[in-house]
Formats: sequence, C-alpha cells, structure tokens
Amino acid sequence: MSITQLCLLSFGLLLQVLPVQAKLTSESPSQYGTITHSQNGAVLNVLFDNNSTEINIYDNKIQSDLYDLVTQLQNDTTVKVLVFRSANPDFFLAHGELTAREGTPNFALDDPRNEVANAWRLFYNITELPMASIAVVDGRARGAGNEFVMSCDMRFATKSSMFGQPEVGLGFNPGAGATQYLPRLIGRGRALEYLLTGLDVTGEKAEQLGWVNRAFVEASEMEEFVGDLARRIALFPNLAIANIKALVSNASRPSLEDLAEEGRRYLGAASAEEAQGLINKTLELTNDESRGWFELNVGDHLPKLYN
Amino acid sequence: MSITQLCLLSFGLLLQVLPVQAKLTSESPSQYGTITHSQNGAVLNVLFDNNSTEINIYDNKIQSDLYDLVTQLQNDTTVKVLVFRSANPDFFLAHGELTAREGTPNFALDDPRNEVANAWRLFYNITELPMASIAVVDGRARGAGNEFVMSCDMRFATKSSMFGQPEVGLGFNPGAGATQYLPRLIGRGRALEYLLTGLDVTGEKAEQLGWVNRAFVEASEMEEFVGDLARRIALFPNLAIANIKALVSNASRPSLEDLAEEGRRYLGAASAEEAQGLINKTLELTNDESRGWFELNVGDHLPKLYN
Amino acid sequence: MSITQLCLLSFGLLLQVLPVQAKLTSESPSQYGTITHSQNGAVLNVLFDNNSTEINIYDNKIQSDLYDLVTQLQNDTTVKVLVFRSANPDFFLAHGELTAREGTPNFALDDPRNEVANAWRLFYNITELPMASIAVVDGRARGAGNEFVMSCDMRFATKSSMFGQPEVGLGFNPGAGATQYLPRLIGRGRALEYLLTGLDVTGEKAEQLGWVNRAFVEASEMEEFVGDLARRIALFPNLAIANIKALVSNASRPSLEDLAEEGRRYLGAASAEEAQGLINKTLELTNDESRGWFELNVGDHLPKLYN
Repeated sequence: MSITQLCLLSFGLLLQVLPVQAKLTSESPSQYGTITHSQNGAVLNVLFDNNSTEINIYDNKIQSDLYDLVTQLQNDTTVKVLVFRSANPDFFLAHGELTAREGTPNFALDDPRNEVANAWRLFYNITELPMASIAVVDGRARGAGNEFVMSCDMRFATKSSMFGQPEVGLGFNPGAGATQYLPRLIGRGRALEYLLTGLDVTGEKAEQLGWVNRAFVEASEMEEFVGDLARRIALFPNLAIANIKALVSNASRPSLEDLAEEGRRYLGAASAEEAQGLINKTLELTNDESRGWFELNVGDHLPKLYN
Repeated sequence: MSITQLCLLSFGLLLQVLPVQAKLTSESPSQYGTITHSQNGAVLNVLFDNNSTEINIYDNKIQSDLYDLVTQLQNDTTVKVLVFRSANPDFFLAHGELTAREGTPNFALDDPRNEVANAWRLFYNITELPMASIAVVDGRARGAGNEFVMSCDMRFATKSSMFGQPEVGLGFNPGAGATQYLPRLIGRGRALEYLLTGLDVTGEKAEQLGWVNRAFVEASEMEEFVGDLARRIALFPNLAIANIKALVSNASRPSLEDLAEEGRRYLGAASAEEAQGLINKTLELTNDESRGWFELNVGDHLPKLYN
Repeated sequence: MSITQLCLLSFGLLLQVLPVQAKLTSESPSQYGTITHSQNGAVLNVLFDNNSTEINIYDNKIQSDLYDLVTQLQNDTTVKVLVFRSANPDFFLAHGELTAREGTPNFALDDPRNEVANAWRLFYNITELPMASIAVVDGRARGAGNEFVMSCDMRFATKSSMFGQPEVGLGFNPGAGATQYLPRLIGRGRALEYLLTGLDVTGEKAEQLGWVNRAFVEASEMEEFVGDLARRIALFPNLAIANIKALVSNASRPSLEDLAEEGRRYLGAASAEEAQGLINKTLELTNDESRGWFELNVGDHLPKLYN
C-alpha cells in the first residue's frame, strides 16, 4: 500500500481546520515596548530592544512582552517561522536582571511574567509553539539570554558572538534551563566545564561544540543564510512543521519536572546570603548593570568578585 | 576477587548453548529478488538491489525481503557482523515509495511487510539483532533510506554521498524514525535544521555532525576500512557483541512508543489533502519516481513543489 | 521581583550550615598506599600510584583506597575541586585486574571494595559528590580506567594519550559503565564502533569526538589549563557547584538501574568458558599483566588472542 492508496483509507481522519486569522502586525507594539515584530509572508521577524537598559537586559518588561507574543502565537497559523534578533549590536540579551530597576514592573512569583521565577516556563512554551523558532545571535547572550537561545529550535551566531552562564560565579545555578539544555547539546563533560567555570564561549567555538547550529564570520553572511532558511521553511505546510517539532521534542527536550527543579534550586541558592553578597558586588562592579568592562567580558572578570 | 576467581562461582550460570546452524547462503534468493547476500566467515554481506526501480526505491518488495532476512537472523549465531551495501552506485536507497507501482505487492496496514506503515518497526528490529550492523553508503540515502542507515549500529559514507529527510517539503513528517534517531546523533538544534528544511547533507558534513561515524574520499578507502572493521568484530564472541549492543541500546535507542507515535503522525499527515497534492506534484516532477534531476538533488529542488 | 527582592522573602529557607572540618591531608595515607593526595586551598590533588603493578592496574587495592576517599568526601565542604592524576607516565590506569595477584585483598562480591563487582557503583558515587571532579590523563586509560575517567565531571588529555574498552576482545562487555557513559558523550554509532572493536582512540581523536573535553600537545600545557580551571572553580560557592552538578546529572547521567544491568551482564559473560579462555590467553601474552608490547598497544593486539 502506497501513501497515495493510504489516502483513500484515512483521508477523513485529519482534516486540517485552519482558522482565518489576521497577520500579526508591528502596529500593535508590545506593552512595555521591548519587542517589535514585523511579518513577511509566513516569517515573523522579532526584535528584542529593551532600550531602557544599555545591555538589553532580560527583565520583567521583556518577559512580559515575550509572554504576550508567545501566547498570541500558540494558536496562530499564519506564522510558520519565528526569527529572533536583537536591536543592540553588542548584547543579544545580556542576562536576567540582578536587581529591580526603577520602572520595572513588579510581578508576583507565580505570575508568568515574573522573569526571575518563570523564565524557564516561558522558554519551554517556545519549544511547544507549532512554528519553527530561530535565534540569530550577534553580540552577547548570557544567563537567561543564552537559555532563551538554547530553547529556540535553531541557533545561528557570528563567530565573534559570546555565550555563557556566569551564574556559578555569583553563587547560584542557572534557573531558566541551562543545566538541562546544554548537556543535551554538547554532552555532560563540556556542559559541566562551562557551567562550573562561567567562562564565555565564542560563536566560533560554540559551533564546534554543537552549542549553536552554525557560526559565520560576517553578520551579513549569517543574515543571508537565515533568510534563505526561513523563507524555505515558510513554504512548507504547518502540519509537517508542527509534527516534526513535537516529535523531535519528545526525543530530545528537557522535561518540565527537571526544569522546575532547576528553577526551585535557583530561587533557593540566589537567595542565600553568600549569593546576595556576590550579587551586590556585581552591581557595584557593573555600575548597576550598565554597559562597561565587566558586562562586556563577564567570563574574564568573574574572579574579580572574589578579590 | 578477580574475574578468574569469579569464574569458579558463576561459571555455571551462563552456559552458552549455540545451536548448530547452517550458514545463510545467497543460493536462496530473497522472495522479491531485491536483496542478495553472501556470507564470508561470520560476516554477512547484504546487497540492496531493487532493480525494478531506477533509484533503488524502498518499497514493499524490499521491505518484505528485508523482513525475511531480519527474521532469519534473529536466531542466527553464525553471523556476527552484517554489512549493508547497495548495487546502485547513485542511490543507496532513494526513499520510501510515494505511489504503488505496478507489480509491487499490496500488503495490509498491519502486515509487517507494509513499508509505509511499518518500516519504523522493522528498522527497530535491526537494532535488536544480536549481531553488529554496518551501513556502507555511497550515493543517496533519503527518507526511509536514511532512516534505515540511522538504525544500523554504525554508518560509513563517502564524502560525496548524500543524506536527507525531504518529507517536510511534501507536507508530512518522517515516519520510520528520523525524528527519534537524528537528534540523538547530532543534537536537537541541528536535527531540527535538517528535518525542517529537508536539505541534503553530504557525507563529509555528516561526519562532522556525527550523523555518520566516518566519511572517506574514495569508496575503495571506505571498503578497506569497513572490511578490516568487520573482520575484526567477527573474531569476537557472540555474547560480548550481543551484550554490548543491548546495553548501548538501553542507553541511547529511541523507545518503541515514540517511534510508534511518529508512525501514527506520518500516516495522518501524509493522508491529508495538502500532502496528497504535494505527492502528486512530486510524482509529476520525478516522472513517477524515475532517475532524473529531481531525485538526484531532492534537497535543492523541494521548493519547486511550490512554484 | 528581582533576585535582591526575592532574598527578603526566601532567605530563611536555605541557611547553609557548613560544618567545621579539617582539611584532608596526605599525612593519612590510603590503606593500601595506592592513592596519595594533597590539598591546596579548596583543590584536592589526588594521585593514583598502584606501584605494586607496573601498569597502574585498577584492582581491589586501588578500589578500596578510592572508596575510602570518596566516602570521606561525601560530607566534605573544604574541597570544591578534585583533580585526579597518575604517578605512572604511561598508564593513567591500565584497566581492571584480570587475575588476583598475590597480596591483593580478596573482598566478597557484595563488598563495595570489590573492583570486579562494584566499580560501576563507586564511579557513580563520584558523580554524586558535591565537588567538581577532573581527570587529567596522560598515558593509557582502558577498561575500568576509561570508565573512571568518563565518570568524572570533566576530562582533559594529552593528544598522545590512549583510551579504549578492550573487553569485547576478551569475550565480555564492559562492566563499570562504558556502555552507558560513552554513547551519551559521542553518540550511539561511534560508541558502538569503539565498544565493538575494542580499538584504542588517541586523546587527539577523543577531543574531536567529545570523549574528552579538550586535548593538548604537551602535558605542561594541559597542567597550566587545568590548574587555572581548578583554581577558578575553587573560588565559587559550594552550593552553586553542588547544584549544577546535581542538575546536569539529572539531565545526562546514566541511571543506576542501567549501570547495574551492565554489571550483571559483565559478571555473567566474563565467567563464561569462552571468556575465561581469552582471559588466560591475555595473561599469557601480557606476562601476567606486566608492562610490555601487549599492554602498551592493546587495541592493536587484541586479534592476536585469536591466533
């Protein structure tokens, strides 16, 4: 029996009811203005631009805006490919916020928009979206920034970009999935090396390790590659894309339980006295998480927290 | 206590009763004539030669012949190493059939010889065989052809060979294990890249990614390497080979449940109207799955289904 | 809510009670004298030196000494990084003993100090220690030696070092975790290649495959790298290190059940008549596991057991 013959048997089983749906437009800006997007055919280009910070910090504003976008996309059928980029040339997403800045909304711990407590859950929701997700990274993606990147289906980077999980240096473990996603990408030994040292890895090395799909010398070269890739996937039927994502996730995605356990340990450890002292020292050295020598090269400077 | 001492305690536990068994011979050709094999010591060399097709299509004939061989091997103790090769220099195994050709047997959905419904199960049976299995790939292995290759214990390829899972372009997901085996070999991000684009990968790149064990410039160089490898393993005791396979499978093989779920989604999606239209377009562009520009470079040409 | 704010809520939850504890010193030598160690700050440097053998065999003496050390470390908070090295320049750890030599203690099968029956359990205990573990390999690490190395959190090697699991050639499967740890590091296909052939792999190739974290041309270069790495991790809080290890283990460590199954099959297969004959032949060719041509290049010489 061939597939064509099978059709006669089972065609009625799987009638796809595609709801009529308006395109997502950038005319409805995100609530906190940290995310803009524009749809080009079935490709939605999303831009992170938390410009109330110098380093594109992943805070409650951006988590809230991303939460709204992801929620909207859960039932969307007009978008087949999500492409995430950053408006900040040096910081794709710096990392989660260490202290609440003035003007940042204060969400309760059980609010899905609370970045400290629930980034892991929101990133997991991205893996459950029916469309393909791609992170296009130039600059730095550390902590929650790198965890966002690892939760995307695919990751491309310039060779000079930088990834890292510096949490260990501040006295706590990552909390948005790094201990679960990274060993699945680069193996237990190398994951422990980067997670226990907090060292940065360049995009070039990240490609060799399997941390990112591919790395490119020039951002323009990466854009050409990703543009072709996104337009190609956007040709293909929604059902094929959604099925492949769901099945690959069955085979290779962290479990919600393990992610939740990481989140619990993160909240506990980050609240301990030793970590609080290290956080305060970091705020001092970074001039309250401003752009500067420390944020530009966190991996190199972590030991300075112990001087 | 050393192993020698242990022997005194437990030697009686594991007496290996090896049934006297005739060698498999190629004198009993497979029912549909798509598979020939010859045994050289404990190495069984198997040749795929579905020569009623120009591109060595994986259809019900070859599935039936392979099913018979695998069933025969389940209780065989004369064979320690299986080496699979193709008689077609350009197509190791092109892919599963898209439409039933005249003369192809029509098996019911629940018949293990039905390729469309049960290739994933037959390939899983290969992972359960007590002997080592090796795929030696020159030419193209796509769809079910690549899924067969990934189900073997080891895979070697020429650098110019081509692998791919083009299903997404036809509107459905792979159905014989690709979404389960590929992320385990090359990681979630890269598996999604190849499964969502349907792009071909060369043997050279496949070696870098871990998709194949090793890639060689010349087929002759590959044959020399694999010949040495097979003869070496063939020296070793059956029990050691079978135990190692079973234990590594415990650690790293997809589950039957996940493979079955992929199979269900495949049958559903391939039967949907959108996929059926794309299948018909493919039959047109390939001149009913004949050798030609489309089958030679499926990855390049998939977007033409949408012109 | 920022991490700083969270502190006000949950600080009380996780008060770390650090027991006052003396440093481990090398002044208390291990019972059988096969392990020495010296503590430098929070780094414990451990040296394997089973000098009653020429090839640093992993026997009941070293297992017993390692068991004592690991047990002592389970509640230690002064050590944050364990670095394992070998006093033998050619054999990091040759492999498990094949026959009980005169003077080697004879422990019961259920004694944790019994190397043949319980190395897998002791190595698992190492993965559960709260501190980071690093193997620094120059020379050969085969069988239980390589399994010890794979159980450490990180592995570094010289490019000329050699790793291998020769068990298959002696008629049995590895018994201290190789079938579980190796496919997680290098994938199912490559793990089966090395486990079914018993071939050695160099440190250089091991780095390419992901078997070791990094490989270095010169041992001095490796020592400089590992020294920096260990001192860096030793700066960081115990809780962060322990949490990261536990979480990464959740994601990527073999299960105790699968390790136990490997152990059971190992005892059974190694006790079979065929394996016992091969063990005796190996004892003959190695002159009772002495340093010589066979032990130096086991991978090359395994087929000679069948001459």
